[in-house]
Amino acid sequence: MISRPTDRGRIRHRLHEIIFEADTKAGKWFDVILIICIVSSVLVVMLDSVATFQERYGLYLLWLEWGFTLLFTAEYMLRISCVKRPLGYAASFLGVVDLLAILPTYVSLFVPGSQYLIVIRVLRVLRVFRVFKLATYIGEASTLVQALQASRKKITIFLLTILTLVIIFGSLMYLVEGPSNGFTSIPRSAYWAIVTMTTVGYGDISPKTNPGQTLASVIMILGYAIIAVPTGIVTAELGIAGQKKIVSTQVCPECMAEGHDPDAIFCKHCSARLN
Amino acid sequence: MISRPTDRGRIRHRLHEIIFEADTKAGKWFDVILIICIVSSVLVVMLDSVATFQERYGLYLLWLEWGFTLLFTAEYMLRISCVKRPLGYAASFLGVVDLLAILPTYVSLFVPGSQYLIVIRVLRVLRVFRVFKLATYIGEASTLVQALQASRKKITIFLLTILTLVIIFGSLMYLVEGPSNGFTSIPRSAYWAIVTMTTVGYGDISPKTNPGQTLASVIMILGYAIIAVPTGIVTAELGIAGQKKIVSTQVCPECMAEGHDPDAIFCKHCSARLN
Amino acid sequence: MISRPTDRGRIRHRLHEIIFEADTKAGKWFDVILIICIVSSVLVVMLDSVATFQERYGLYLLWLEWGFTLLFTAEYMLRISCVKRPLGYAASFLGVVDLLAILPTYVSLFVPGSQYLIVIRVLRVLRVFRVFKLATYIGEASTLVQALQASRKKITIFLLTILTLVIIFGSLMYLVEGPSNGFTSIPRSAYWAIVTMTTVGYGDISPKTNPGQTLASVIMILGYAIIAVPTGIVTAELGIAGQKKIVSTQVCPECMAEGHDPDAIFCKHCSARLN
Amino acid sequence: MISRPTDRGRIRHRLHEIIFEADTKAGKWFDVILIICIVSSVLVVMLDSVATFQERYGLYLLWLEWGFTLLFTAEYMLRISCVKRPLGYAASFLGVVDLLAILPTYVSLFVPGSQYLIVIRVLRVLRVFRVFKLATYIGEASTLVQALQASRKKITIFLLTILTLVIIFGSLMYLVEGPSNGFTSIPRSAYWAIVTMTTVGYGDISPKTNPGQTLASVIMILGYAIIAVPTGIVTAELGIAGQKKIVSTQVCPECMAEGHDPDAIFCKHCSARLN
Repeated sequence: MISRPTDRGRIRHRLHEIIFEADTKAGKWFDVILIICIVSSVLVVMLDSVATFQERYGLYLLWLEWGFTLLFTAEYMLRISCVKRPLGYAASFLGVVDLLAILPTYVSLFVPGSQYLIVIRVLRVLRVFRVFKLATYIGEASTLVQALQASRKKITIFLLTILTLVIIFGSLMYLVEGPSNGFTSIPRSAYWAIVTMTTVGYGDISPKTNPGQTLASVIMILGYAIIAVPTGIVTAELGIAGQKKIVSTQVCPECMAEGHDPDAIFCKHCSARLN
Repeated sequence: MISRPTDRGRIRHRLHEIIFEADTKAGKWFDVILIICIVSSVLVVMLDSVATFQERYGLYLLWLEWGFTLLFTAEYMLRISCVKRPLGYAASFLGVVDLLAILPTYVSLFVPGSQYLIVIRVLRVLRVFRVFKLATYIGEASTLVQALQASRKKITIFLLTILTLVIIFGSLMYLVEGPSNGFTSIPRSAYWAIVTMTTVGYGDISPKTNPGQTLASVIMILGYAIIAVPTGIVTAELGIAGQKKIVSTQVCPECMAEGHDPDAIFCKHCSARLN
Repeated sequence: MISRPTDRGRIRHRLHEIIFEADTKAGKWFDVILIICIVSSVLVVMLDSVATFQERYGLYLLWLEWGFTLLFTAEYMLRISCVKRPLGYAASFLGVVDLLAILPTYVSLFVPGSQYLIVIRVLRVLRVFRVFKLATYIGEASTLVQALQASRKKITIFLLTILTLVIIFGSLMYLVEGPSNGFTSIPRSAYWAIVTMTTVGYGDISPKTNPGQTLASVIMILGYAIIAVPTGIVTAELGIAGQKKIVSTQVCPECMAEGHDPDAIFCKHCSARLN
Repeated sequence: MISRPTDRGRIRHRLHEIIFEADTKAGKWFDVILIICIVSSVLVVMLDSVATFQERYGLYLLWLEWGFTLLFTAEYMLRISCVKRPLGYAASFLGVVDLLAILPTYVSLFVPGSQYLIVIRVLRVLRVFRVFKLATYIGEASTLVQALQASRKKITIFLLTILTLVIIFGSLMYLVEGPSNGFTSIPRSAYWAIVTMTTVGYGDISPKTNPGQTLASVIMILGYAIIAVPTGIVTAELGIAGQKKIVSTQVCPECMAEGHDPDAIFCKHCSARLN
């Protein structure tokens, strides 16, 4: 489309094609190698945190980590240089993730331990969807996201209700059980209430007295009943989304009836032929 | 509407507008400040229960607590004085909450420890919905409440069933495992049964013998199957509520009836042809 | 209906009315007192199992237990004597429960400890539904039972699948973790697999090695995905039941169209008046 | 169908009828005995792993195990010999299971401990469905499988999301809590994150510090909200499957098309009037 591109422009265009798209062979290979690098670098960070690996292969892991970071830095700079609006890319979600994926290694020179934050690189795997042309997957994901967005308000109310219950029940348990049974403060009791209502139940803190166990029983059954609510919300939304999809958008040219099945050839109300 | 109001009446009317409504600028500011005070006072109580904070800043926290309580007392008296029917307000849900939110501090002068009950203040945050004019949020909340009310009877039956199962399984486990394995009494075994059926599973009490673990397995799988029931109830109700919404936008041109099916040709109430 | 009943027949008829029905004042009072007795006797048994109560009030509780048992024995004999087909009653579900509710006390004379089995008396509370004329509750319960029955086959398949997975994963964990980490045998590993897949998670047995924790992660995520299945089954059945109820069974006398709303007056297809 | 079969062919045909089908009396008996053998052999393996049984009855269990294995080996060879395409059977799912069910015992001669893998025999119980002619059960199972397949993509996205969250939250907890509180490495922290998000909550690792408990609370509530998603997906799919079933019993008298809506007046395929 661009007539008479300069040499630099042509190179930039070609680079953009390879780095940002996956339609050409070179572009696909670039993405596949990139994803292997991302997954490998996340594995390196995870292994680096294991004491026995750290002791034995610590130096190699450090070298690998810096190697991947320099690679990703080069890639980030290439991306910046070949897009038309570098700031637009840098401010986009994927652009911010790309930057966050390389920063922690450099920061770890000054703040030890922060290199583990580069596991955020795992978010870069999102690019995988483009490689395999998983358009349908993105469609399915957007259905899920839509269902969640549609139930956003209901979920907000639900979370506020949970938070209120957690604070009130936490305070009651603090009064009933007291610090000697592990309920050392209201915030810790609230933590216990969350552990209980979500049915996680570590058992690191648990009621010991009879009134405490009775109150805990009430909280548990309440949590059990409440678990039904978010499920119900999401299910209902997904059900509505599913129903909408099934009905076709065809309108009868004769009687204007709607709601025909996708495989309908004639109108079910007036027998006119549908287009 | 009130012709020739006295000065006192005018002040009361103005106060009512500020305190109870959020349409004017003053009323909105009043509510925003009130909510900040409520959240702050709840945080003060929570921090007061943490031993290290209590030791270091105990006096300041006590001052803050009394400050907030006096503030809310003044506010409560203002509310009482500017409504037309003070008793009606005092007996309403929000009125009772407002009173309960200030009482514990005074009671704590005589009964130490009861000041922690003022976390009930957190319920006052419900007023937040009015401030941000979250009418739609209230609408969503009422949909949730409706769905819960519609399934009230099913949930009552469900809870009675759970209670019966808990007592019977608790007794069986008491007989099977016995006091030496932590099942010291039937009430404690029933507590264990609740912990298990709700899938919380603290592990403070757990079966040790083979028959006990077999019985526990049955209880767990039963609890797993039973968790489906309340979810199913709420989901079905929410689904029906959702479907009802989809049903109708058509209004009959003759009798103005609503709620027609999307594929209706004639009004189901007056037989007029729908457009 | 019975003309010229003998005195004995009249008494039996009157007794039947009081004991089995709740339409007369006497019948209602009988049921209310009965339910109070049932709940009290269950509480007595539960308290009797608590060591401190047993020590202090053991004799009183024993007296109360025998008192209730003799009372229920008398009631059982009255029921037998006033129904027309005593065997029919004795073989019915409620009749068997009535018998099981009194037997354990007598058996405890020979087998110590079996008196705790009388908590089965709690099942007698089912009679409560008749007292309060909760016909609608029974209707709701039957909807639940119907939904469960309709999904009976799906649930059977589901349970067989769970059982198969539990045995296979239990054996794998036994091989991976071994007896030294608490997985002392395949049955115990299967118990652990049930505790994990139902998300109860006591923590009395938990994987310690790296491969064991990896395998456990797979089992947990699988269990998390599987929990969706029974919920989905019951919800779908309840949803279908709910939809069926909403549509009326009216048929248009003109065009025989079905599926009218319960509040429809005219047919939505041909505008004929519905009856 | 086969005219003039040789004697060998006739025997093979008869064997096939007995071993692979359950329509004749002999075939049914063969299957019933087979299933009893399968369940017994699985029980033998399970008991063999219990130390006390192993000590006392170890030799008998070994004999039984070898007996069952030889029996199943003979059965496998019979199956191979009487099917028309032995390779087709050997490569089919049930054929592979049949082979895997006998291999571990032979392998255990060289690799001790591997005999426990024969619990895979439990998969052979799948043949039970044919015996009892539970065609409807298979129908129900296929509905479940269909619903799961239809939601395959959504579940893949869901699992990738979970995996990403688990790695990121695991790393954060590793940084916040550190090895001294049990979070000894990122893989172990990720294991903890899975235990928490699936609401299993063993309690073998649990946060001790205040920021750790705060972060854990967020993870738990997130996990609580996320549990709604797979349930919603499966329920919606099952609901759609259920609705599809309700839709149609009418058959067009002209073109025999099925799947009309309950309120359809004309066939949507050929415009003929439906009865």
